[in-house]
Amino acid sequence: MATVAIVGASGYAGQEILDRVLAHPALELYALGSDSLAGEPASTLDPRLGRNGWSRIPRFITNAAALASGADVTLLCVSHEEAAALDVPSRGVVVDLSGAHRFLDPVVYEDWYGFEHPRPDALPSWSYGLPELGLTAGRLVANPGCYATAALLALAPIAAEIEPVGVVIDAKSGMTGAGRTPRASSHAGVVLENVAPYRIGTHQHAPEIAAHLGFGVTFVPHLLPVRRGLLATCVVRSRGADLRRVLEERYAKSRVVDVLSEGVVPELARVQQTDGVEIGVFDDRSTGATIVVCALDNLGKGAAGQAIQNVNVLFGLDETTGLRLSGVLV
Amino acid sequence: MATVAIVGASGYAGQEILDRVLAHPALELYALGSDSLAGEPASTLDPRLGRNGWSRIPRFITNAAALASGADVTLLCVSHEEAAALDVPSRGVVVDLSGAHRFLDPVVYEDWYGFEHPRPDALPSWSYGLPELGLTAGRLVANPGCYATAALLALAPIAAEIEPVGVVIDAKSGMTGAGRTPRASSHAGVVLENVAPYRIGTHQHAPEIAAHLGFGVTFVPHLLPVRRGLLATCVVRSRGADLRRVLEERYAKSRVVDVLSEGVVPELARVQQTDGVEIGVFDDRSTGATIVVCALDNLGKGAAGQAIQNVNVLFGLDETTGLRLSGVLV
Amino acid sequence: MATVAIVGASGYAGQEILDRVLAHPALELYALGSDSLAGEPASTLDPRLGRNGWSRIPRFITNAAALASGADVTLLCVSHEEAAALDVPSRGVVVDLSGAHRFLDPVVYEDWYGFEHPRPDALPSWSYGLPELGLTAGRLVANPGCYATAALLALAPIAAEIEPVGVVIDAKSGMTGAGRTPRASSHAGVVLENVAPYRIGTHQHAPEIAAHLGFGVTFVPHLLPVRRGLLATCVVRSRGADLRRVLEERYAKSRVVDVLSEGVVPELARVQQTDGVEIGVFDDRSTGATIVVCALDNLGKGAAGQAIQNVNVLFGLDETTGLRLSGVLV
Amino acid sequence: MATVAIVGASGYAGQEILDRVLAHPALELYALGSDSLAGEPASTLDPRLGRNGWSRIPRFITNAAALASGADVTLLCVSHEEAAALDVPSRGVVVDLSGAHRFLDPVVYEDWYGFEHPRPDALPSWSYGLPELGLTAGRLVANPGCYATAALLALAPIAAEIEPVGVVIDAKSGMTGAGRTPRASSHAGVVLENVAPYRIGTHQHAPEIAAHLGFGVTFVPHLLPVRRGLLATCVVRSRGADLRRVLEERYAKSRVVDVLSEGVVPELARVQQTDGVEIGVFDDRSTGATIVVCALDNLGKGAAGQAIQNVNVLFGLDETTGLRLSGVLV
Repeated sequence: MATVAIVGASGYAGQEILDRVLAHPALELYALGSDSLAGEPASTLDPRLGRNGWSRIPRFITNAAALASGADVTLLCVSHEEAAALDVPSRGVVVDLSGAHRFLDPVVYEDWYGFEHPRPDALPSWSYGLPELGLTAGRLVANPGCYATAALLALAPIAAEIEPVGVVIDAKSGMTGAGRTPRASSHAGVVLENVAPYRIGTHQHAPEIAAHLGFGVTFVPHLLPVRRGLLATCVVRSRGADLRRVLEERYAKSRVVDVLSEGVVPELARVQQTDGVEIGVFDDRSTGATIVVCALDNLGKGAAGQAIQNVNVLFGLDETTGLRLSGVLV
Repeated sequence: MATVAIVGASGYAGQEILDRVLAHPALELYALGSDSLAGEPASTLDPRLGRNGWSRIPRFITNAAALASGADVTLLCVSHEEAAALDVPSRGVVVDLSGAHRFLDPVVYEDWYGFEHPRPDALPSWSYGLPELGLTAGRLVANPGCYATAALLALAPIAAEIEPVGVVIDAKSGMTGAGRTPRASSHAGVVLENVAPYRIGTHQHAPEIAAHLGFGVTFVPHLLPVRRGLLATCVVRSRGADLRRVLEERYAKSRVVDVLSEGVVPELARVQQTDGVEIGVFDDRSTGATIVVCALDNLGKGAAGQAIQNVNVLFGLDETTGLRLSGVLV
Repeated sequence: MATVAIVGASGYAGQEILDRVLAHPALELYALGSDSLAGEPASTLDPRLGRNGWSRIPRFITNAAALASGADVTLLCVSHEEAAALDVPSRGVVVDLSGAHRFLDPVVYEDWYGFEHPRPDALPSWSYGLPELGLTAGRLVANPGCYATAALLALAPIAAEIEPVGVVIDAKSGMTGAGRTPRASSHAGVVLENVAPYRIGTHQHAPEIAAHLGFGVTFVPHLLPVRRGLLATCVVRSRGADLRRVLEERYAKSRVVDVLSEGVVPELARVQQTDGVEIGVFDDRSTGATIVVCALDNLGKGAAGQAIQNVNVLFGLDETTGLRLSGVLV
Repeated sequence: MATVAIVGASGYAGQEILDRVLAHPALELYALGSDSLAGEPASTLDPRLGRNGWSRIPRFITNAAALASGADVTLLCVSHEEAAALDVPSRGVVVDLSGAHRFLDPVVYEDWYGFEHPRPDALPSWSYGLPELGLTAGRLVANPGCYATAALLALAPIAAEIEPVGVVIDAKSGMTGAGRTPRASSHAGVVLENVAPYRIGTHQHAPEIAAHLGFGVTFVPHLLPVRRGLLATCVVRSRGADLRRVLEERYAKSRVVDVLSEGVVPELARVQQTDGVEIGVFDDRSTGATIVVCALDNLGKGAAGQAIQNVNVLFGLDETTGLRLSGVLV
């Protein structure tokens, strides 16, 4: 059993990581870090953690203590700027769920994240952990953004087959994507019976997607009145290849990514609360463009599930160990 | 006072038309048609129609009787195929809210609507009633589709200034857009906590938009877990013009369409239950594209409000008479 | 035209008051107070306030300046504790939408509101402004709580006809009832696909209801994943009277409160965004109890609509002037 | 491994049963019955059933064929009236999820269900399968109603300690509780931003609750704009006992039912998609009543989870085998 420390366990991604670690046969929860809950029992975060039948769960400690706990795996669930400034453990696997280590080029942080990266020299030590891209390596892994995961799962396998100009990704996310901190924009009185795009043309996942496709894309995210889940609708033009076929072949053996049969449309509801992905491929009668739709859970494959998948890859386990991939709940 | 007959008053669009007619100072409800409710009092449709303070409202009659009532204005709120087959009154204004008379070319009906138009020779008698395009004319008006209204309000004024290839319109609509007939896909158990695109690349509003822009577009509609309202996110490339400025000038005097200040994002919630429109214009840092976002209510400006606006235009009234354009409800 | 000052215009109730004042034929907006928005144009609160066609709306000023503006009508939309401590204007009508002046007995504030009332001697100067109870009087009016309004409209007319022991009021409210300040409990990620009671057995509207019924009640409020609207399900036992008949007679001439026909069930959706009320009366086959269901909009009849109705009463206008009582929107 | 036949597998309860059977270590799916899907592969119901990694799932057959399949366990997921008329298998365990076999007295079916029971003599052969009541016995088990499950888990342990007159149960359910058949009342355009009670005073779960408490109750169910989950708010008066303590002791060892610590409020979101139950106990300051709140998932403990729990009991397995009881998803 590898021991696990979660840094920032009281946020949405942290809680989901905790969920996956508790269900994982080869991981053992060792340190539960949260500056706001330090000293409290785990059930303060969620009463379910105090139920009968749960294995013993440690109390919360500070994030600094969790970082220094000497765990075999450290999962960072703090903000971009906090993560960028952390002294990461000098041993063990570290997966950073923030954007702080996703780019080789520190200029991206000034241009798109709004802060100067405090440790630009460290950036080359991190790999980009989207397991389906095969880049997960070393002991320091930058977990991809939720939107970038959806866009890259849909487009990376066909990047060489499409026109690099004019790619549009219109994405829609549930509200947990906005983080747990209460804001005017996340108030239910604003969100219910509403939908709106945000950070239009300036969202930091645009350069992340571009970095791995090799060309720029127009990316417009929207917030939906749903709790969780994310759908990316991507419009591309093939240079001649049968894009459906390329995607089907690429994911033929995947237990995480499912390319749906012709005519079957991806739906949020079927991937919510899971670590799986649905992809659909459609022709546009009007223009000949191809529309690739990708659905995943922003907290599952878009965050916690992917982090655990990365840990599995690094530890040589089956990549789906401990993931939520089964079930046909209504 | 002009008399009004509503044909198909028990559907969503019909009820909204009824709402606008009851509030209109120059229109008088004369015939309330519904085959399913014929013979019933109006309050069968909605208990509010039986409240104190309402002006007397007639009982429902059959659609055939409403059509034959000799009203000055006939509003058709039935399905595409039913509307196409109707004997429209030989006098008075007729506004058809279906798609049955939006195209000059009858082939569109076979290709995109799935039926052969029974009266192709009649199509040239109808004008396309998007008042902001200035085409409303004659006594027979085809009311535009809800998505087409949003896309054309956003793009028609700039059609000559943008690249005609690669225009993408990603639209999201509330569930009333799917009509009142219960279907598996409109069951709340499917819709809640879900979002999915539909008729991807094959929706009949794509040729409607194209017909008035002069070029084809990629159009992808989605259904949202909201009751009403519609948002269209349009990605275009300018040929050089300042697209925001063109739109601001075009709508400078409009009381229906509001081009929001720089940085202000259109929201469903602010146009819901109204006949107004919000447009926002944004630059895409990654690619130089321009993103035009348009929000309106699918049952307001996207249906009933627009029908009344067309009637106002034909009767020489202020185009906003009787529309829902004020209010700052939360 | 009477001039109006709104104190706390940037909260939910304040914005709704603003909506009603702008639509009111006998009221003129004079001072728009908000400490957080002082100095800003009205369109900062809502872009609709900057649209074409709006009458000129003044900039925001501080709440203190609005209070001191000398308006004919002052509407207080601040918290209980702030309102209790205010120097109210020495002339003109003042309507307080908070709970600060709803009780004669200052002990209620310590017991149920959690603060000592700073001006207990002033409490007798205020009347309880539920117009249907006929108590609105003098120039200082305490606007009732939203839940109390629903419960009292349902039960006050039958209070003498029911057993005073064992009355249960189970209420459900939209999220705007929780106010505009972002909190963990109002985050959409918590609210969506969720429902829970709150302040169970300790909510401050319980003594407010009891004060006007003459006996204590069990009151349990719940928060719903809806934006606005409130439904109170009240269970009572008749002492013999036909409770439906008593209610029908009481509201026979009301244009605000509608007792629905037998078998018709009140619905949130039909009262949302209105100042009207629906009441339904039902028999319980199992126990012989009577179930009275009351639906209203927490921001309409439950707050802003009622405040304007009180102003109308005090100015001798038709009580429904400027209210939102018509329309049959879907 | 015991073999399982599901009759009516394409409804909501049937699909959830399928979910639990596929995850159960001692059950093997043998026959998948659905008259509407007979002949189709399982993935027609849900594309997830066609994914990589699933054990082989049989095609749909007719309900009659599934009934006659000779499986060790037959799970009936059809309507009350259909289930009442079925020839149940003469061997093996049968769990009926409808209400057709929940009452000894056939008169209840005429009075509350609206049909005459076709096989009144068979009723005594069925036991009432609420495992926490300890009545599950024999091979024929009537699975309780979702509301009745919540009410009885909250009240049965304290039934002897409370006043039998004046018990009120106000319940709120997600839309899957209304079944999968599209109806006007389940259309998302009606459900979103709405809430309303239904079958007020006449719901068939009222006599079911009464039968096991020993006295009548006032029961009012409401439909919520949520997909799944159910909350029952019960108001009772203690005869002197500490009701919290009685409930805590009753469920001290349960892994299904969790009596939350003082002050912690049950929430739908924490029980959704699970087979667990949360109970909270609160004092009413105004009247001395006790408020017991119970949350569960209408499709989990309220239907499929309970059915599997009953099967586990009859087979002598741990009662939680194969249930969804872990996880702390956001």
